[in-house]
Amino acid sequence: MPDFTPTREDRFSFGLWTVGWQGVDVFGGAVRPPLDPGQAVHKLSELGAYGITFHDNDVFPFGASAAQKEAALKPFRAALAATGLVVPMVTTNLFSHPVFRDGGFTNNDRDVRRFALRKVLDNLDLAAELGARTFVCWGGREGAESGAAKDIRSALERYKEAFDLLTQYILDSGYDLRIAIEPKPNEPRGDILLPTVGHALAFINELERPELVGLNPEVGHEEMAGLNYAHGLAQALWHGKLFHIDLNGQHGPRFDQDLRFGAGNARGAFWAVDIIENGGYDGPRHFDFKPPRTEDFDGVWASAAGCMRNYLILREKVRAFRADTEVREALAAARVTELAQPTLAAGETLESLRAEEFDPEAAAARGMAFEQLDQLALEHLYGVR
Amino acid sequence: MPDFTPTREDRFSFGLWTVGWQGVDVFGGAVRPPLDPGQAVHKLSELGAYGITFHDNDVFPFGASAAQKEAALKPFRAALAATGLVVPMVTTNLFSHPVFRDGGFTNNDRDVRRFALRKVLDNLDLAAELGARTFVCWGGREGAESGAAKDIRSALERYKEAFDLLTQYILDSGYDLRIAIEPKPNEPRGDILLPTVGHALAFINELERPELVGLNPEVGHEEMAGLNYAHGLAQALWHGKLFHIDLNGQHGPRFDQDLRFGAGNARGAFWAVDIIENGGYDGPRHFDFKPPRTEDFDGVWASAAGCMRNYLILREKVRAFRADTEVREALAAARVTELAQPTLAAGETLESLRAEEFDPEAAAARGMAFEQLDQLALEHLYGVR
Amino acid sequence: MPDFTPTREDRFSFGLWTVGWQGVDVFGGAVRPPLDPGQAVHKLSELGAYGITFHDNDVFPFGASAAQKEAALKPFRAALAATGLVVPMVTTNLFSHPVFRDGGFTNNDRDVRRFALRKVLDNLDLAAELGARTFVCWGGREGAESGAAKDIRSALERYKEAFDLLTQYILDSGYDLRIAIEPKPNEPRGDILLPTVGHALAFINELERPELVGLNPEVGHEEMAGLNYAHGLAQALWHGKLFHIDLNGQHGPRFDQDLRFGAGNARGAFWAVDIIENGGYDGPRHFDFKPPRTEDFDGVWASAAGCMRNYLILREKVRAFRADTEVREALAAARVTELAQPTLAAGETLESLRAEEFDPEAAAARGMAFEQLDQLALEHLYGVR
Amino acid sequence: MPDFTPTREDRFSFGLWTVGWQGVDVFGGAVRPPLDPGQAVHKLSELGAYGITFHDNDVFPFGASAAQKEAALKPFRAALAATGLVVPMVTTNLFSHPVFRDGGFTNNDRDVRRFALRKVLDNLDLAAELGARTFVCWGGREGAESGAAKDIRSALERYKEAFDLLTQYILDSGYDLRIAIEPKPNEPRGDILLPTVGHALAFINELERPELVGLNPEVGHEEMAGLNYAHGLAQALWHGKLFHIDLNGQHGPRFDQDLRFGAGNARGAFWAVDIIENGGYDGPRHFDFKPPRTEDFDGVWASAAGCMRNYLILREKVRAFRADTEVREALAAARVTELAQPTLAAGETLESLRAEEFDPEAAAARGMAFEQLDQLALEHLYGVR
Repeated sequence: MPDFTPTREDRFSFGLWTVGWQGVDVFGGAVRPPLDPGQAVHKLSELGAYGITFHDNDVFPFGASAAQKEAALKPFRAALAATGLVVPMVTTNLFSHPVFRDGGFTNNDRDVRRFALRKVLDNLDLAAELGARTFVCWGGREGAESGAAKDIRSALERYKEAFDLLTQYILDSGYDLRIAIEPKPNEPRGDILLPTVGHALAFINELERPELVGLNPEVGHEEMAGLNYAHGLAQALWHGKLFHIDLNGQHGPRFDQDLRFGAGNARGAFWAVDIIENGGYDGPRHFDFKPPRTEDFDGVWASAAGCMRNYLILREKVRAFRADTEVREALAAARVTELAQPTLAAGETLESLRAEEFDPEAAAARGMAFEQLDQLALEHLYGVR
Repeated sequence: MPDFTPTREDRFSFGLWTVGWQGVDVFGGAVRPPLDPGQAVHKLSELGAYGITFHDNDVFPFGASAAQKEAALKPFRAALAATGLVVPMVTTNLFSHPVFRDGGFTNNDRDVRRFALRKVLDNLDLAAELGARTFVCWGGREGAESGAAKDIRSALERYKEAFDLLTQYILDSGYDLRIAIEPKPNEPRGDILLPTVGHALAFINELERPELVGLNPEVGHEEMAGLNYAHGLAQALWHGKLFHIDLNGQHGPRFDQDLRFGAGNARGAFWAVDIIENGGYDGPRHFDFKPPRTEDFDGVWASAAGCMRNYLILREKVRAFRADTEVREALAAARVTELAQPTLAAGETLESLRAEEFDPEAAAARGMAFEQLDQLALEHLYGVR
Repeated sequence: MPDFTPTREDRFSFGLWTVGWQGVDVFGGAVRPPLDPGQAVHKLSELGAYGITFHDNDVFPFGASAAQKEAALKPFRAALAATGLVVPMVTTNLFSHPVFRDGGFTNNDRDVRRFALRKVLDNLDLAAELGARTFVCWGGREGAESGAAKDIRSALERYKEAFDLLTQYILDSGYDLRIAIEPKPNEPRGDILLPTVGHALAFINELERPELVGLNPEVGHEEMAGLNYAHGLAQALWHGKLFHIDLNGQHGPRFDQDLRFGAGNARGAFWAVDIIENGGYDGPRHFDFKPPRTEDFDGVWASAAGCMRNYLILREKVRAFRADTEVREALAAARVTELAQPTLAAGETLESLRAEEFDPEAAAARGMAFEQLDQLALEHLYGVR
Repeated sequence: MPDFTPTREDRFSFGLWTVGWQGVDVFGGAVRPPLDPGQAVHKLSELGAYGITFHDNDVFPFGASAAQKEAALKPFRAALAATGLVVPMVTTNLFSHPVFRDGGFTNNDRDVRRFALRKVLDNLDLAAELGARTFVCWGGREGAESGAAKDIRSALERYKEAFDLLTQYILDSGYDLRIAIEPKPNEPRGDILLPTVGHALAFINELERPELVGLNPEVGHEEMAGLNYAHGLAQALWHGKLFHIDLNGQHGPRFDQDLRFGAGNARGAFWAVDIIENGGYDGPRHFDFKPPRTEDFDGVWASAAGCMRNYLILREKVRAFRADTEVREALAAARVTELAQPTLAAGETLESLRAEEFDPEAAAARGMAFEQLDQLALEHLYGVR
């Protein structure tokens, strides 16, 4: 059995806010002390990660002066240098401070929208300086609890304005950065704008520089809407828009659980890894989870290690699944590959198609052999093949 | 109080399969006899509808010969002529016959895909002949129950191929028809392709003739994913893609309830009517519901009448809401209109923006006044203003 | 139109933690300053409430000494005396402090369970002293995120032990107090013990003094499981166990929204008020909601006022509905009252029943006339009858 | 690796309606021909099952005369005799025929309630004759789509009346039979009575002979409400009420998927098997699933075989998990066993408890070590330990 020990080549990254989450929720206060960012870098490096990501205010406080920022960044940079950890992605916190109670880019208050833009511009500079290639935008407070409070079309217009300005800034600055939008259906807002992978993909098409904007789909966010995460990744890839991923665990429509990867919908995790590994995605394997509030730091690190280990376990399984001769036969029996074949042959016309004879009753008797195929997949997941 | 009696000018339409549903479900057989299409036309006309819509096999059986089709269509056409009811939309049944067990356009079996195309082409001819302007495609069986059974990217490729062929056919035939895709997240398949308004909007952008393809969002289908239907309509309008609507009722993530309009999420219905009436949509108000299995035909017609009556009640309410001076003041207090204002002024640069002074703590103290506004809306819904 | 202004006779009560919620959630910090309990009493009194309820630590901090508690209680008591507001219910916070990270009564750590008991005993004394008649227990942290972490049967055993000890203490102390369990399916724990009204009702039957323990069902908690709140109230009443209620609003399975009453599932709210008013419940109409984080204190009070106003609006509607002659005819047509009639007549035997002739096909043709009845209800909700 | 081949000792049973499902759903007709009951017996026997269960109308049609019933039962009995398969459970179809459009025992129509009772009495005789020990009652049509249509307390009264009559009949007839109620939250009705394990457990306590009535919890039915199935089993066992189980698969709140066991929530299935194997349940391992509509009979049998195989795979895993020394250490580290210890020692009083010193801040620093424990469980599930 492989040992499932992560290496830098596996390109695992973690948000500072994940292992650093102190456990504050609606019903209770902090259960863990603040985690020093430098310490997080050292510990994650030790566990086998290759990268760390952060919101601006994970490293320095909201409203920090340039000097305060630099003071906070210095030990963080030192830790990066000491460990060799990279910063593949940076993101901005537009949701914690009360000024963002109605969001950032789509806040009804124009002065807050302007402030949000400034905050992100500053953070784009930092992202570029740190060598990040992806800039994630999660608009967690962009939304509404009630119907009249937000004019959705105006909000989309302002959202577009913001992304058009940011991508112009990236271009003008010569930054090698792309933006990845992270959709979420609800929580903390009653309904959030761009609630799913699909809505965000559609939105991007209206931007001035769509080539600079893609997606950062999160397992739990799609599953909170009862959607299939692997299908969402596949559609994002089909559109050429899978720029980044957020891996974690969830148990269907309920609050955002942010379980460690692999510890939610296990079958869904298997298929997610399958499309990530085999679908052409080449970015970091990024974890956005929350070590449960029950845990102390031992639990935090066990949870973080579990994310990576589970990914490697599942990666081994999907490789074995795809290499299994019986699976290949079952895929053929289920005509899965036949779907890659165009419905009309090259040069064929609708006229000739319409003239074709077909016996639907005979065809209707054919089973699809999906259960046999899926049982093989399940047995790979269960580790009994 | 207005009398809420529908007229032709209200442009209400119903699917033949709605009032004609016999009550067959997974757990039981028919509770009502078949409804003659001509009789449905007469009765709906009497109730105040202006249009009727249908799947091919609502009028003539699967596999009907040209003569059989004509025999079935003749009394239907006569009823249309007698009543003046129009056929604003037609759709194809690619989900009931066992040959479509794995879908139509994305069936793994190429011969079934070809058959599905032929069936739709025939139906496009019929739609055009009957004067329909919208052709709805609900891909209810396009999907999967298990991860390996469907290559999602191939499926999207085939889906695109089908729509590209159909729009070419429409163009070549000179038909004045547009296609409207109806998204649904699941049921009857475990996961359906193009599960939400967003996914379908994104997909359309990849088509060869995106201008001919738009959306037919259904209340219940979005709400089954916990999504806000009115937000979905607003985003579809923002993209210029709200071609048709399916109105009914649902109680959140569960089986597809298809309740009569107004009898599910009442607040959601209010906001849906608000955006339909005030957002620039000019198509039919189409009902896609199922009179519950508890009902006989008296209940069926009461249910159908209720759909229209509830729409008119809600339309009256949203008009009163938008005309209410106190509401306008509350909208201003909530800075809702300020969101229409661009975040950057004309000619303003990011440089000047970045130089601006701002006190986030002061701004953070401002409440949004959304509760006061929403209470006004609720009181309009409750009819106490 | 009635003016829907609440009076003491309406018996509206609020949790201190509702109007006092500062807006802390998983994604952000406080947006409102702390609310002084005395001020809350005065303001709620002014708005028309008759009662206020609280967790111990809503009034004095966790770990307060006896002197500190008294110092905190003094102005609160003075405000009660000045306004005449009563304290109909008290509850204990066993979920905010990190010591309760795994719950109180069912914490794996025995010393924490013992501490939780002590904290509740102290609070029972306070509840009795303040004249409360109901003591609510919400076990928000009693549960688990993962399968092995909690032995459910041991947990139920410990839960029972706690309630048996508490009721013994109530009896021994001669307190005129009853306990009301508040079920919730999840959040903040992955799965919470006694997740629904049903599970808690079943549990109570295993207690030593079941007569002292009943239910405090919350709208949102049942609706988070997709359950019908009014049905839950009806079943609790049928068991004689509806001791208290928590009114608020929710939009189906998702995070706990705690919207103001009436502002979630409007139809559900109508039926909830119907069973509360007409089902024999005689306790306070208690609101457990959270003024959205978008609001300042004006919004907080508007939201609180809205809860009461919406209850009165709906109460007027259910009275009108039940008094409506056409409704009574529709209820008869739907044979709703026939269900009150025993299936077997007095003295009738199964033998005579089995000998009876019956034509199921004839009976099967009867519709239930539910749609006509429900449309009347809906029109009462909409205020158009 | 064990071979996971089922034997009679494993006590697997299947409903005739599972492998016999023809695929009819709301959106389509039969995809498979009827399955002869005798053939089902032979095939299930061959696959390794020990039992078969059925609704009356799975074997003979609704309204069959005594002679017709006997004619239908004869080959079924012969197949049982030939194979040695037993009939551990029987159930009655009170939901398919239109006469049951509003349910059976709680139908508003008294004559239908009487007919439902007669139908069940006949079927109790048959169940006893065939040696069944459990009689399942799933009240799938007992419920409502709208608030006024069903007086819930009257419905519970009638439901109780029915169970009191049936248990009296069982006693009077000297049958060795117990009734098992199968809860379900919704579908096909908008809301079903006794929606969860909890509601049914509570209801049983009001019956005249509660000892004769228990539960038949189904995986999917609990998971449709977002509830933890293993927790539900544990609570049912705690009440001494786990009489029977229905195993299948589901993906959270949505339509009733009835996937083969193991092929839904895989982690949930692991914990379900853990409590079934280790919690004292000694009834059949009964599968209530639906082979997907995509399948022909090869797929049907592969799906049935998969149910049993997956159970055996998971049984092996939970045994290994419970036997794993590292797991035992982790359980101890997580103080899981400490929860079995009473919170008060024998003879201890609340007075002495209240005098105890305790430092909550110190205790609050302790982590629960749940993540380490759960990771071990997950690795057993994944088969990498």
